[in-house]
Amino acid sequence: MEKISENKCFGGTQGVYSHDSQSTGTPMTFGLFLPEEAEDGAVPLLWFLSGLTCTHENAMTKAGAQAWAAEHGLALVFPDTSPRGEGVADDDAYDLGQGAGFYIDATEAPWAPHFRMESYILNDLSDQLFSDFPLDSDRQAITGHSMGGHGALTLAAKSPGRFRSVSAFAPICNPTESDWGKKQFTAYLGSPEAGRAHDATCLIRENDLDAPLLIDTGTDDQFGDLLKTEALAEALAARRAEATLRLQKGYDHSYFFISTFMEEHVAFHAEALWA
Amino acid sequence: MEKISENKCFGGTQGVYSHDSQSTGTPMTFGLFLPEEAEDGAVPLLWFLSGLTCTHENAMTKAGAQAWAAEHGLALVFPDTSPRGEGVADDDAYDLGQGAGFYIDATEAPWAPHFRMESYILNDLSDQLFSDFPLDSDRQAITGHSMGGHGALTLAAKSPGRFRSVSAFAPICNPTESDWGKKQFTAYLGSPEAGRAHDATCLIRENDLDAPLLIDTGTDDQFGDLLKTEALAEALAARRAEATLRLQKGYDHSYFFISTFMEEHVAFHAEALWA
Repeated sequence: MEKISENKCFGGTQGVYSHDSQSTGTPMTFGLFLPEEAEDGAVPLLWFLSGLTCTHENAMTKAGAQAWAAEHGLALVFPDTSPRGEGVADDDAYDLGQGAGFYIDATEAPWAPHFRMESYILNDLSDQLFSDFPLDSDRQAITGHSMGGHGALTLAAKSPGRFRSVSAFAPICNPTESDWGKKQFTAYLGSPEAGRAHDATCLIRENDLDAPLLIDTGTDDQFGDLLKTEALAEALAARRAEATLRLQKGYDHSYFFISTFMEEHVAFHAEALWA
Repeated sequence: MEKISENKCFGGTQGVYSHDSQSTGTPMTFGLFLPEEAEDGAVPLLWFLSGLTCTHENAMTKAGAQAWAAEHGLALVFPDTSPRGEGVADDDAYDLGQGAGFYIDATEAPWAPHFRMESYILNDLSDQLFSDFPLDSDRQAITGHSMGGHGALTLAAKSPGRFRSVSAFAPICNPTESDWGKKQFTAYLGSPEAGRAHDATCLIRENDLDAPLLIDTGTDDQFGDLLKTEALAEALAARRAEATLRLQKGYDHSYFFISTFMEEHVAFHAEALWA
């Protein structure tokens, strides 16, 4: 693992590191915020999965999450959204290929060799974090934005017992029925139907999420039609799931929306992580 | 004036606008955060002047200031740091020309026609803001980072009675004695000596700043030698000025440093603005 930078931030340290991932077969970069309390022992970890076109950097610099993580003594990890580099397949579209990994393991050419973001997050990055930093693997929570909200919901649904709480900002909720999903599942997995195992609405229709859930989505989200929030809302209500879905008046899809509600999301996770 | 974007943010609106400046002879872009209270009447205004290489966007997206401005019912304006465009003089160095206006009015070729950032801030942008938005011109405060900290200190010193409080993050304190200043004053004004009228330390040696002052600078600032904090510290103490200078252990020059202390700076200004 290579240290790229470390900056003191809210009494703790905002670091950026690079490491080799066996799953993606590439170097991967991630941001990690450690609160001051990490000097004295292991702290809980909140994962933040980012959206389309983002790297590890966007949420790390624009979401304002460190202020609240420091207040609650939590660490934050900001993974990249895909493998990158010259030897890695890509597409001209902003929503396929590099920057658009969708947090799944691709099975189809040309994506299969490197696009294995589910394994990267749950195995490689996880192993690196818990072996090299003072983090408590028994206290993990997960959140994310847009494609990263989809990632948070689906990785939590596929990993029972792993995350104590789950939240999302404007998540893609039902990608097998959306243009943010059908094309990608076809490319990465061979068909939209193969994406049902990685679709939050489909997963929650079949199984309970074994953790409390908080979702915020703006009523003026410019991508609202692509998110299919209504499908997940229906599924959660039908399932009588422990969940809070808030449609926030006037907010859109931007980081101005995310930063506005970050304090409440971090507090929500802190309650579960410190319980 | 043209609206470029408006995003709901912490209950208020983060806008970006473009307007023509008579002083610079160019279109200029600025960010303006209006808190929810602006719907009901004029609110106080805190100016944030940015540092070298920045546009209106950096602090607007990375300083986390809107959270605290919303809490205190303050507006925030984020001006650009220089005129820009093809017809505007520039230099290959990052610290001269476009992105490096130093908040002064240039008198020398090729800079004089457009590099008039002092007049732009104090006149053109100010006129536009107070005529087009619900802002209280009797309640203004000013802050900034690095070159923008120099701007905040010097514009306040040169405008007695205008700003009720002044603060700065890692300001350039004594540019006539620094490589962040000598080159620029020579280019824009003809000599480093001509810069004494625009040097915070020189100004404060001669006159009181008629407003309370708060400065934070990191002990690990990678540009610490260029800031000349010691000169301003000496001048403030010799003058028995109302001022707080904090050297913050372990912090550097980055936005991670700025965002850490933004809450306290906004609260400091709010106290003066609402008095």
